[in-house]
Amino acid sequence: MGKINGLILKVICPDQPGIVAKIANYVAGHDGSLVEFAQFSDTLVSKFFARLEIDTSSLNVDLKDFMNGFGTLGRSLRAEWHFRALPYRMRTTVLVTKTDHCLHEILWRAQMDELPVEITSIIGNRNHCQDVAQRYGIPFHQINMDGEDREAGFKKIHEILESEQVELAVLARFMQIVPNWFCQSYAGRLINIHHSFLPAFIGANPYRQAYERGVKLIGATCHYVTSDLDAGPIIEQEVKRVQHFHSPQDLSRLGRDCERNALARGIRYHVHDRTIIDGNRAIVFPD
Amino acid sequence: MGKINGLILKVICPDQPGIVAKIANYVAGHDGSLVEFAQFSDTLVSKFFARLEIDTSSLNVDLKDFMNGFGTLGRSLRAEWHFRALPYRMRTTVLVTKTDHCLHEILWRAQMDELPVEITSIIGNRNHCQDVAQRYGIPFHQINMDGEDREAGFKKIHEILESEQVELAVLARFMQIVPNWFCQSYAGRLINIHHSFLPAFIGANPYRQAYERGVKLIGATCHYVTSDLDAGPIIEQEVKRVQHFHSPQDLSRLGRDCERNALARGIRYHVHDRTIIDGNRAIVFPD
Amino acid sequence: MGKINGLILKVICPDQPGIVAKIANYVAGHDGSLVEFAQFSDTLVSKFFARLEIDTSSLNVDLKDFMNGFGTLGRSLRAEWHFRALPYRMRTTVLVTKTDHCLHEILWRAQMDELPVEITSIIGNRNHCQDVAQRYGIPFHQINMDGEDREAGFKKIHEILESEQVELAVLARFMQIVPNWFCQSYAGRLINIHHSFLPAFIGANPYRQAYERGVKLIGATCHYVTSDLDAGPIIEQEVKRVQHFHSPQDLSRLGRDCERNALARGIRYHVHDRTIIDGNRAIVFPD
Amino acid sequence: MGKINGLILKVICPDQPGIVAKIANYVAGHDGSLVEFAQFSDTLVSKFFARLEIDTSSLNVDLKDFMNGFGTLGRSLRAEWHFRALPYRMRTTVLVTKTDHCLHEILWRAQMDELPVEITSIIGNRNHCQDVAQRYGIPFHQINMDGEDREAGFKKIHEILESEQVELAVLARFMQIVPNWFCQSYAGRLINIHHSFLPAFIGANPYRQAYERGVKLIGATCHYVTSDLDAGPIIEQEVKRVQHFHSPQDLSRLGRDCERNALARGIRYHVHDRTIIDGNRAIVFPD
Repeated sequence: MGKINGLILKVICPDQPGIVAKIANYVAGHDGSLVEFAQFSDTLVSKFFARLEIDTSSLNVDLKDFMNGFGTLGRSLRAEWHFRALPYRMRTTVLVTKTDHCLHEILWRAQMDELPVEITSIIGNRNHCQDVAQRYGIPFHQINMDGEDREAGFKKIHEILESEQVELAVLARFMQIVPNWFCQSYAGRLINIHHSFLPAFIGANPYRQAYERGVKLIGATCHYVTSDLDAGPIIEQEVKRVQHFHSPQDLSRLGRDCERNALARGIRYHVHDRTIIDGNRAIVFPD
Repeated sequence: MGKINGLILKVICPDQPGIVAKIANYVAGHDGSLVEFAQFSDTLVSKFFARLEIDTSSLNVDLKDFMNGFGTLGRSLRAEWHFRALPYRMRTTVLVTKTDHCLHEILWRAQMDELPVEITSIIGNRNHCQDVAQRYGIPFHQINMDGEDREAGFKKIHEILESEQVELAVLARFMQIVPNWFCQSYAGRLINIHHSFLPAFIGANPYRQAYERGVKLIGATCHYVTSDLDAGPIIEQEVKRVQHFHSPQDLSRLGRDCERNALARGIRYHVHDRTIIDGNRAIVFPD
Repeated sequence: MGKINGLILKVICPDQPGIVAKIANYVAGHDGSLVEFAQFSDTLVSKFFARLEIDTSSLNVDLKDFMNGFGTLGRSLRAEWHFRALPYRMRTTVLVTKTDHCLHEILWRAQMDELPVEITSIIGNRNHCQDVAQRYGIPFHQINMDGEDREAGFKKIHEILESEQVELAVLARFMQIVPNWFCQSYAGRLINIHHSFLPAFIGANPYRQAYERGVKLIGATCHYVTSDLDAGPIIEQEVKRVQHFHSPQDLSRLGRDCERNALARGIRYHVHDRTIIDGNRAIVFPD
Repeated sequence: MGKINGLILKVICPDQPGIVAKIANYVAGHDGSLVEFAQFSDTLVSKFFARLEIDTSSLNVDLKDFMNGFGTLGRSLRAEWHFRALPYRMRTTVLVTKTDHCLHEILWRAQMDELPVEITSIIGNRNHCQDVAQRYGIPFHQINMDGEDREAGFKKIHEILESEQVELAVLARFMQIVPNWFCQSYAGRLINIHHSFLPAFIGANPYRQAYERGVKLIGATCHYVTSDLDAGPIIEQEVKRVQHFHSPQDLSRLGRDCERNALARGIRYHVHDRTIIDGNRAIVFPD
């Protein structure tokens, strides 16, 4: 990845006066240069959230010392914080079943260098996407998850993610309900694309439901996966206008475009450390 | 309203080949001229829907005979149909409680001649909007509906609508649950603006719910009122992108814009006879 | 492509009463069944436009006779008309230079069967996209067009299109100005994606211009190519909201998404015969 | 307006490391509390822009001293800066000709307390909007500007603005070209709504032009007025999707909605000091 030239710092702590000054001072005091400093004080819950992008090329201390040294300030703020060295490529695996539109979108954007990810492998509980994987020269693991093989399948996936040191797993229309232990093991590192504008039409076949209800807009939701199905923190949403003449198949086609866009932006925000999870919601500093 | 120069014809019937030809023939055979002929064959439920706008200035028969004569064709198609003579102003009443943004929107568009309606009166279960009514020179009825007066209040409203020969009643942020008998009495003539993107966040204070869930889009839904609360046929929907820094108050402010827009377009479609109700959904031929 | 089961008929003629009845009668009189009948009477220019989709499975005459027989009616209406037998795949070539995002979008949608096209080949005046072509198993022609080779290059492209019997050529970020004779030779069959919301920022590097002007929305325009650069009939447009912190590179990235979407929908409308060119504008009956 | 409880500070200066820390320190050092601190370093032009919202209720110095004391820092940064005491209502005049949709929008939002403005008067070169002014109880000045009276008219307007101590003048479909001296006199305090998506269709009747070109999106642009007609810094833009069946009148109707929305948001950004003008563009920190 080449030489480190920057840091992203994410901070979450109880709100109080002077936090911005203290953090900015820490950076300036070590001759770091702020590229971006987004913050948000949520007065309703008295919490402070920030994301800093720091140019470290002129730091007057060692990078490691800079990061360690922040601890004193961080602890005094009762903060949780996280540093990421730049440039960075997040090791990412995509989980799929049959449909490949979301997978295509991710692979194309990765290849375009729009998404700073390294796709370590693609995992499918069917082999429909093996083709696409091959075309992009990416390893494909087929894992049988039918019936009694389901639990063993998730264990196998877990092993693969561990052995490939995966930092982000994307459920790109992966049609399996993820067990609790798996959600917890990858909390904050597991992103799903839901084929509906949440909270709405939860459950199977939202496009058929949308047709029957005659909705005038359909959508998709990109969210972190938690054990509470379809209720994890929302990262991004997208809608499209539809009309009565759109059949469930048309809605599904238009929905695919919503899914691709919402997922691509959602992943982008995550891999650029633009999201901060706070309970049931995600703070997102968009770019 | 001046001399009749056109007709709108709405038709709904079982689908079968040749309907368009038969209807178009009927019009052409009497020297009517089609301004617009929108149709839709829903192959999933085998139904045919159409809306025609007919220039009647060159009709070779009396307008009444033209409308009556359509009965033979209509019955042979097992159709329901409806004629409306143009130009037309629909007698409309707006029901309000405290907030006036939707009321303002309707009054302004009516005055601009964007909406072909005649506002017969404004009915409020509070007096907050009396001011606005006066400014536009429109009668205001205040009806007490608190506690035990609720049922009597709806009866009083019903009387007003009857005595003013109201054809459309708009619930413009009218904060009362409408009783069944009233919904049925005004079936297809009662339009509500719901302050949420349905089906979602049903119930009280959707903006607070939206904030807590961290949604990235909020919306509003204009729909016909049926006895099934918030589940009537959807006419129009609108969304806006929001972010984490939007407080419930901000969401409410942005939501007001969604509400105004969705309601104004929904009313527009209805008063131009661009909607056809089919069970739980509305076919809308937008302009 | 299998057995013919339908027809698309496009008609343009001077407006007059009774056209819809006459056309619908012709179809019904031969036991054809209307799947869709979109029409538009432009009263400003007194022209009538229609697109019919006809289920021909129950026709009481030979398909050829049905098409030929329409001539009598068509001539009496002083119409231009066009039939297309269904199912259909339009033979399509994509012209590219360096960037491949639009190419990817087309290839993916073609493969998904979202676009009924057969990609006969990809033509590049650089070899950057050869890779993508190979991945999808599609022939790639590299044509040198630099300096004095430009005119010869277009002649070579013309030969390829002729020999491959290409019906649609798509300029998918093809960075060459197309000569007049070529535009005329492929009039109505040559589609371009312009990286700007037309009419605006005509010329080179619109994203830089957009940045300097501080626009709050950027866009892309899909249009038919005519000899008047960037002024051909518009088929589809797309915009995205941007902010001051978006660099020209960011605008370019967001613009790519506009381009992909506008081009994909524009091609879709064209290959489904949903466009009718009328001088400098395109009538589009969207789906 | 009640007791001062906050300040908005806008800063523009050459970019350099440490600015954020210095400014945040100044605030924290005087026990001010940051409600919001939006900044932007434009690396292309090496400029720094910031907008701070400061809760001053716990300041350890007098408000005046706090503002004056900032000068030392400001000068050392070679900055331009501006303080605004909160709460605040900006003295605003609306200039109109015939159409009143933008005027209505402003008056309604002002009355709703969505816009912190005090409308001192409405100025019209026709009397069409006098009615609306009266309804809202706002003084209306009719100024004749036809033919030779034009220059005198602008002088009269200037006098009114001066005598009413107007801080913001809004051209809400004011159909007069503003002379140079007037633009300069109100530089940065004169906002216009242009009935087109700029830069496009500059000049008269953009909706007719849009119809003839068959555009698929129409829009409106809210911008600061400079002597270069329609080329001042853009504050906000809005678009709507349109189709071939929309007549110039329809486009005009839909355009009015774009105009109302773009203008309302543009004014909102300005009166909340969310805009910073930098040459030909406006940095906008949206809420």
